[in-house]
Amino acid sequence: MSILITGAAGFIGSNLVKVFLEQKKIVFGIDNLSRGDLSNLDFAKDNNNFHFKVLNILDFQEFNNFIKEKHLISPIQEVWHLAANSDIPAGIINAEVDLNDTFMTTFNTLQLMKEFNIPIIVFASSSAIYGNLGEKKLVEDIGPLFPISNYGAMKLASEVAISASVESHLKQAFIFRFPNVIGIPATHGVIIDFINKLIETPNNLNVLGDGTQQKTYLHIEELIDAMLFIRKYSAEKISFFNIGADDEGASVKFIAEEVRNVVSPSASITYGDGNKGWVGDVPKFTYSIDKLRSLGWSPKLSSLESVRKAINQIYKDRLK
Amino acid sequence: MSILITGAAGFIGSNLVKVFLEQKKIVFGIDNLSRGDLSNLDFAKDNNNFHFKVLNILDFQEFNNFIKEKHLISPIQEVWHLAANSDIPAGIINAEVDLNDTFMTTFNTLQLMKEFNIPIIVFASSSAIYGNLGEKKLVEDIGPLFPISNYGAMKLASEVAISASVESHLKQAFIFRFPNVIGIPATHGVIIDFINKLIETPNNLNVLGDGTQQKTYLHIEELIDAMLFIRKYSAEKISFFNIGADDEGASVKFIAEEVRNVVSPSASITYGDGNKGWVGDVPKFTYSIDKLRSLGWSPKLSSLESVRKAINQIYKDRLK
Repeated sequence: MSILITGAAGFIGSNLVKVFLEQKKIVFGIDNLSRGDLSNLDFAKDNNNFHFKVLNILDFQEFNNFIKEKHLISPIQEVWHLAANSDIPAGIINAEVDLNDTFMTTFNTLQLMKEFNIPIIVFASSSAIYGNLGEKKLVEDIGPLFPISNYGAMKLASEVAISASVESHLKQAFIFRFPNVIGIPATHGVIIDFINKLIETPNNLNVLGDGTQQKTYLHIEELIDAMLFIRKYSAEKISFFNIGADDEGASVKFIAEEVRNVVSPSASITYGDGNKGWVGDVPKFTYSIDKLRSLGWSPKLSSLESVRKAINQIYKDRLK
Repeated sequence: MSILITGAAGFIGSNLVKVFLEQKKIVFGIDNLSRGDLSNLDFAKDNNNFHFKVLNILDFQEFNNFIKEKHLISPIQEVWHLAANSDIPAGIINAEVDLNDTFMTTFNTLQLMKEFNIPIIVFASSSAIYGNLGEKKLVEDIGPLFPISNYGAMKLASEVAISASVESHLKQAFIFRFPNVIGIPATHGVIIDFINKLIETPNNLNVLGDGTQQKTYLHIEELIDAMLFIRKYSAEKISFFNIGADDEGASVKFIAEEVRNVVSPSASITYGDGNKGWVGDVPKFTYSIDKLRSLGWSPKLSSLESVRKAINQIYKDRLK
């Protein structure tokens, strides 16, 4: 029995590969390297249980051939589908980015899971599916669901393509709605942006927006831990869970100041106007993880602690 | 100012064309004729305010050229997007049917609305987006939304692509969640199936399932009336409404008996087992139209009355 990870060379994918290999599982990994990086998988390249191929899921025939071949070596029992666009603004400019990289990768994956009778999918969804519900607490079964970015829309479209597949051919689906996840290897996001900006101009950090924008952050190590926990203990046909920190989050101002303190302590910080970074960015929301807590898992770090830990790890990584 | 109707030669599209032409509006219609039929538009062919083209929305370049040309004649102010797969079982067998005919038609339409600054979309969604929520009353903001058919999934995927577009470029969106709509020109559905079966074998009507399956039905004339009412009186950026009958619905047994009484009164009726017609078919649900009623609209016919009216119209049409 083996596991297929799509987006295996990405931030979350490469961390998952590491954990599954430590558990002595056979892991097939694919990635088109559009956002992932082969160097993220350096640790695994001599491991005989790991089989990686550079592959674009949109090339249906090649994807089909890959699964057919690997299925003969060791039947694929589950797919952890992480391949997706992770750049929200890119999808605002061009809707085809999320259509192809998020939705169509899911659609093609489901088609081949049907073809090859692979029973279980684990999908990396997002808090962005909730859109802007104002002050309402974001519990998993809230409605209405009107995402405000193509990123959120195509994550939700993927969720519902999965739910239809559960009725027709899948045995089980796990849908994890991620918050902002931080840590290494960092590929994008506010922390690495601020670090890069301060390395370039060490005297001043120029922040988009007024700095009051507040979000929860979860460290990658906790995210992986939560996903494995849910995978192990939830038995629903469709297990859908928010995963996140259990607090008020960290403001952009907090992150800017913490990065400044680590990278260039004497730098000044200047802010822009408004608390919305870009079209499709939800200004403030309260994320409920009560369902996950009821299952028995809680985060060990607060958003603030996760941010501090990630800043140190990313900066150290950046200096290599 | 003009209106573009996609799926203009279909059941609902052709009825809408009629109403808008009566209102002296300029109407552009397209249809790929995969399920629609040109004869449905016979009444409009000599009307100078109606411009129809056989066109597949999936052919993006041709669709682009069409809108560009029509936009010069009379700027398109709103799109009534009805082009979609309407055959739920077809999408269960092959997920690409709903992907292409429902979701990708919406995606391409939104792309061109952005390109040509067309501000308003009206979208024909479905009660199928709600999946199987058991005994819960289906109000518009219920969750979680896990459709059990690709049909429902791609309708919901279309809704959320629209919601992301409202944030980025649309001025307003109207999302109408249809129940089973009946009337003429009938293209598919249980009534025409039963009529055809009884014409073929006048002694016996063989019913799939045990006949207890119960759904609400709305007559096309009421549906059109409700859509125009919401379009006129709802001012939300995203106006999303269930449209339906306000009752317990009609059972398959009721429909079978009514069709029998009209088509072949002496025929016997035989039933199968179970109350689920096919994978992806929701057995029973209670549809709330409280939101629509609050806006000021209620149906004049019950499900039973709509079924009776439609049976007579469809049978008469079938005998022509």
